Amino acid sequence: MPAATPASHVAVLGVGLIGGSVGLAARERLGARVTGWDPDPAAREAALERGAVDATAQTPAEAVAGADVVVVAAPVTALAPTIAAALEAAGPQTAVTDVGSTKREVVAACQDGRFVGGHPLAGAEAAGVRHARADLFADATWYLTPTSRTAGVLLERVHNFVGALGARPTHIEPAVHDRLMAAVSHLPHVVANVLVDQVAEALGGETLPPTGPSFRDATRVAGAHPSLWAQIYAANREALVDGLDDALHRLRDVRDRLASGEDLHDWQAAVGERRRALLEVGLTGGERTELRVAVPNRPGVVADVALTLARAGINISDMSLSPSPDGTSGVVALWVAQDAAGPARELVADLGFAVT
Amino acid sequence: MPAATPASHVAVLGVGLIGGSVGLAARERLGARVTGWDPDPAAREAALERGAVDATAQTPAEAVAGADVVVVAAPVTALAPTIAAALEAAGPQTAVTDVGSTKREVVAACQDGRFVGGHPLAGAEAAGVRHARADLFADATWYLTPTSRTAGVLLERVHNFVGALGARPTHIEPAVHDRLMAAVSHLPHVVANVLVDQVAEALGGETLPPTGPSFRDATRVAGAHPSLWAQIYAANREALVDGLDDALHRLRDVRDRLASGEDLHDWQAAVGERRRALLEVGLTGGERTELRVAVPNRPGVVADVALTLARAGINISDMSLSPSPDGTSGVVALWVAQDAAGPARELVADLGFAVT
Repeated sequence: MPAATPASHVAVLGVGLIGGSVGLAARERLGARVTGWDPDPAAREAALERGAVDATAQTPAEAVAGADVVVVAAPVTALAPTIAAALEAAGPQTAVTDVGSTKREVVAACQDGRFVGGHPLAGAEAAGVRHARADLFADATWYLTPTSRTAGVLLERVHNFVGALGARPTHIEPAVHDRLMAAVSHLPHVVANVLVDQVAEALGGETLPPTGPSFRDATRVAGAHPSLWAQIYAANREALVDGLDDALHRLRDVRDRLASGEDLHDWQAAVGERRRALLEVGLTGGERTELRVAVPNRPGVVADVALTLARAGINISDMSLSPSPDGTSGVVALWVAQDAAGPARELVADLGFAVT
Repeated sequence: MPAATPASHVAVLGVGLIGGSVGLAARERLGARVTGWDPDPAAREAALERGAVDATAQTPAEAVAGADVVVVAAPVTALAPTIAAALEAAGPQTAVTDVGSTKREVVAACQDGRFVGGHPLAGAEAAGVRHARADLFADATWYLTPTSRTAGVLLERVHNFVGALGARPTHIEPAVHDRLMAAVSHLPHVVANVLVDQVAEALGGETLPPTGPSFRDATRVAGAHPSLWAQIYAANREALVDGLDDALHRLRDVRDRLASGEDLHDWQAAVGERRRALLEVGLTGGERTELRVAVPNRPGVVADVALTLARAGINISDMSLSPSPDGTSGVVALWVAQDAAGPARELVADLGFAVT
């Protein structure tokens, strides 16, 4: 079931690197009309010059008027009020999504069925719309965090919209997303900082020996973008504190095993295997299979299906929703990896829905 | 005072990557005759084929006979017995050094004045003499850990020998060396392992999102060379346990600050500065100044001078020792960075020696 263009009018609130790249990609890849707003008039002007937007607006409400999809690309601290402003101005058939790097708080704060939390794993060293690129999201994972309140038709639209930008939409629960980001990204940043502090103190006045790439690599992200990262730590405080507790527990365990004279050979070897497995996973493509699921037309059904599959590690590469003529039910077509089709069918059937 | 060639006959015990590279560099750069021994006959044969040695020996004693410098390049677990075998076979004017990656234990176990602990910060991903290179030590820091027992003339010889291989000889106390390696290298390896374990568990069955280079970089050394690294952890157990305790303390502190709601912006910014300062240090060259120090001819004097300067962060780039005609005293010429000459002069004078 091929989707029509998921959005012909897109609003972008916050036209920095990410918002600007959304605008460029939406214009180039979807042929959408893009309206941009930013609290900074100079940023609005730059977005227009860069071709990231067709027009700029003086207020969020003006930008949102008539949009199919609103993308809130504000800094973490401004996310909640900007999402609220977008929903306030948006019509009942407008989907609102954001690009914030943590999701639990922002999703919990927004009960509106038109909102779908999002987080593209894309970025660049340099900020600002000047560095925006239409291909910034090519093949990037773009997390979506629907809830049982999310309208299925709007979730489908956001899913297909970010897919059309070149990204791989991936459904995940907000709390799982934040735990995952804490483990994969935020904790490594904190640990890199600690390693730098420790070496700086261990060296005293002495010079750092040119130890090859190990210390350099291990601390590459140390001290990165202070204002951005301090906000990210704070926004993901709960999951990051849990991650730190977990890391403390693991380090103490290794410390005790080492102190007791244990040979760490087997651990070292197992970690090597685990790292290879982690980094190799997901690099394979493969055939896709379509599952068609008959569902009742009520909020949250599509999100339930998507999240049930996500919990089992099954990703939905494409999604298409068709309501029945009387509007009381519909069919969701989902494309999943061929080898996941069997388990996916069972999981969906367990939810009580008919799969064809 | 230009030095004659520091060694015309070199013995290498253990002809893998490091020992083989010592042999290649000694032959090519010093025109030295190199005799090699290895417990593995196939490795001996490969070293001969590679041109890393002029001749192979059946026993350590046969290799050591007549050598000016013996380089013990055995694995960590075989270091102490191989050093002992070398000293047993060596004459009174032969210097014995090693290339082990930790120094406190091996130096404490060897009371012989002909031994100077060493550790070149050089290596490669691939092991074995096939990957040996004459330029492996070019501009690499090569730590030397003399003690108050070390014969000055033999310390001078080893210093100039490793300098002639292309390395930068750097004097350091064994315990400081091991603490430094724990902080700069061994701890980052353990931490990378822990990050991998934590992410593998956090992901459960889910795939690792392509998070960009941060996790990949932070864990690049995770699980590296299990047999080598398990030995290194064990050999540096004491310093590494201390380093882990320090890391645990620092991580717990960050965790508590984060949990209490503290803004980590200033820490993030300060770490960025510290990392830049750490990695920029030592990249500048600069003029060298010669200091001439009159010293009595007794063991440990030259080592005392070198380590006193090392503790103050002053590196000796070249060293030359000339005994007085009656053999009771001598002059050590030391080259240090121009801006370190004043402090170096004072430190040496404080030891009770005349500086000119």
